[in-house]
Amino acid sequence: MRAVDIIARKRDGHELTRDEIAAFVDGCTRGTIPDYQTAAWLMAIVCRGMTSQEATDLALAMAASGQTLDWSAVAPIVADKHSTGGVGDKTTLVVAPLVAAAGLPVAKMSGRGLSFTGGTLDKLESIPGFRVERTVDEMRAQVARIGVVIASQTRELAPADGLLYALRDATATVPSIPLIASSIMSKKLAAGANIIVLDVKVGLGAFMKTLAEARALARLMVQIGEGAGRPVRAVLAAMDQPLGNAIGNALEVEEAVQVLRGRGPRDLRDHCLLLGAHMLVLGGRAASLEDASRLAERTLSSGQALERLARCVEAQGGDTRVVSAPRAVLPSAREVRAVAAPRAGYLQALHAETLGLVAMRLGAGRERKGDPIDHGVGLLLHKKVGDEVQAGEPLATIHARDSESWTRASQEVLAACAIGDEPVLAPPLVWETL
Amino acid sequence: MRAVDIIARKRDGHELTRDEIAAFVDGCTRGTIPDYQTAAWLMAIVCRGMTSQEATDLALAMAASGQTLDWSAVAPIVADKHSTGGVGDKTTLVVAPLVAAAGLPVAKMSGRGLSFTGGTLDKLESIPGFRVERTVDEMRAQVARIGVVIASQTRELAPADGLLYALRDATATVPSIPLIASSIMSKKLAAGANIIVLDVKVGLGAFMKTLAEARALARLMVQIGEGAGRPVRAVLAAMDQPLGNAIGNALEVEEAVQVLRGRGPRDLRDHCLLLGAHMLVLGGRAASLEDASRLAERTLSSGQALERLARCVEAQGGDTRVVSAPRAVLPSAREVRAVAAPRAGYLQALHAETLGLVAMRLGAGRERKGDPIDHGVGLLLHKKVGDEVQAGEPLATIHARDSESWTRASQEVLAACAIGDEPVLAPPLVWETL
Repeated sequence: MRAVDIIARKRDGHELTRDEIAAFVDGCTRGTIPDYQTAAWLMAIVCRGMTSQEATDLALAMAASGQTLDWSAVAPIVADKHSTGGVGDKTTLVVAPLVAAAGLPVAKMSGRGLSFTGGTLDKLESIPGFRVERTVDEMRAQVARIGVVIASQTRELAPADGLLYALRDATATVPSIPLIASSIMSKKLAAGANIIVLDVKVGLGAFMKTLAEARALARLMVQIGEGAGRPVRAVLAAMDQPLGNAIGNALEVEEAVQVLRGRGPRDLRDHCLLLGAHMLVLGGRAASLEDASRLAERTLSSGQALERLARCVEAQGGDTRVVSAPRAVLPSAREVRAVAAPRAGYLQALHAETLGLVAMRLGAGRERKGDPIDHGVGLLLHKKVGDEVQAGEPLATIHARDSESWTRASQEVLAACAIGDEPVLAPPLVWETL
Repeated sequence: MRAVDIIARKRDGHELTRDEIAAFVDGCTRGTIPDYQTAAWLMAIVCRGMTSQEATDLALAMAASGQTLDWSAVAPIVADKHSTGGVGDKTTLVVAPLVAAAGLPVAKMSGRGLSFTGGTLDKLESIPGFRVERTVDEMRAQVARIGVVIASQTRELAPADGLLYALRDATATVPSIPLIASSIMSKKLAAGANIIVLDVKVGLGAFMKTLAEARALARLMVQIGEGAGRPVRAVLAAMDQPLGNAIGNALEVEEAVQVLRGRGPRDLRDHCLLLGAHMLVLGGRAASLEDASRLAERTLSSGQALERLARCVEAQGGDTRVVSAPRAVLPSAREVRAVAAPRAGYLQALHAETLGLVAMRLGAGRERKGDPIDHGVGLLLHKKVGDEVQAGEPLATIHARDSESWTRASQEVLAACAIGDEPVLAPPLVWETL
């Protein structure tokens, strides 16, 4: 099986066999297939697409390229969740301890923020002392003891995905539904959870801008999960405006803690409860979504979910006072002032991607991989789409490093808000569930 | 201008600008764009195509990547011809001296044979002493003195094309009309001739198997020539059966000499006269194709064309007795015997590609670049499509190294011939002219 023949078959629009895909991924990983052949293969996939069987085989081959985790010695069913990335998305900080507290162990490997999206690891690292690097043994022991771990992906997990992703980034072969789906799923499959809930973001603040794209991606990831024998549910969640009110690492941790204390923004709370409920149903802790929702709500209001976050923070070396007095321990910014609404009316749009980029430029995120970040800076929105606004009323509070960056951010925030005369309805949180 | 952005624009089906194409070709040539980016770009071109403007810009950029020849000091108009490669195609050996003898200088850089097709350089090297390697100064002096040179392409000519071609071969990005057209034309443009006649082969013994493909390739090459200010004519020539009767280097030289002596197979003679006439019209030596045809025929029958070949052979160090007594100087094979027709009937097909491969396996051609070849071996066909055949009559004479290879070839030759009861018409030589 020559690499050039496999490339030619994909170039001509044929369906590749499992063996062909496995041989290609194996050759990339071991370095026997040169990058230029892999690049041509990836572009042929971008242009010609892949069937769900091919995407499943690709995800499985990438998962098999490195270490694969097995949780069976720890618990009969371990759950995982994944968000495709949005603005203000701190759901993992709420959902993981909540689901664990409801009796379903959660082993979650997260990533870092890039461009307009944040990353769970960055958020957790705003908690003094919190360590995201865990060995497999440490993760296993932690899940066995407290039912939850949130750690960074180990280097040994799906190395083929890392190699292919680096090449895709340099060869304009990122935007491909089968490549995105198999990349995400390869890591989920290698991470070993038995059931997976996917939070597929769609809209102005997501990588998938249209419902059609997001649906195609979600459907394919569900099919890959099925093909690999892992039940997967995908929630298509609106990401036109940010989720919750906080954007920025420490601010988002504080907001997550508020939700776990029974407060916090309604949209964030509802979305966390919904994702948690889907995990509990898939994991067999509830017979129906209604039962699971009630269980999730009870776990939240009883304080058990908050307590579970505290145990997770403690297990990973963080300052547990974050759950009782977050402001006392989390880093903060020097220049904290509100931006006032320039006119009265109704907030008709809050452009999520723009606000994500504002937060990034404030220092909360990275333009390039490896850039340093400032955990204290960010935005706190006081109005969401559909809210009525008075002239001069605070729209958002900007937490900036200095007055110069505050001023730039304030102009950008105003440009991201549309205030009009007509009342508008708050947009839906979820478009559909697959 | 980042390479990845140029790749993305082609991936998304946009037309690249001249500057983008020039930047990419320049980056490849200077090594600042890595092979994996070039490979992705090539695959995007294969999948999304190129407009004629893009193909023109690509050809010009590749031509500009190295040395470009200028014949203006030698003659006001210098002509070139190019065949896309077929079986038994020895037209250059006839046309170049013929056109030169008719008053239009010809500067021809040729290639070597690969797979089922032969190459003019290999044919010329069957003439003892003939040197195909010429410096630019030597070529210029020879054209000034005798009006014709047939040499190998210098390494400095369109180096970007060489680099891209090597990568295309390894990345399954060869079959693309715009890439093929700009590759051919880049070398023609760099070689500096003012007018170019293209012999685009179509059929079972050509790289273009269908008339539609060949027409698209020919049309694009004509457009590239126009865009570069070089008049180009393209003849779509049938290549289902071999051209002429001889396949194999020395045998083809001998056949070309026969044509120049006013004999030789009718199809080869007609095709050479047609190509020569087109060159003479484009080069301004005749007002119409009719006039040019008469001029070509006169030049042939007067012996001037043969005499011009002799001067070319002499100038390039070859044994000039090849024009008077070819068999006395050309290498020959040890095992020369005819294959007899197994039945009576009409020859309905002579599969050109198969016969090309038979000749290659006899030793006349190369499976891989750089393989050694045997100038003496090959095939001489005694029947062409449409001819009546008696059982036992010789179909073809095989010139082999030994009886073992003769035997294998004889079976393969019989498999390549279809004899049927129904009379068939000899196929047309030329489908159309662009």
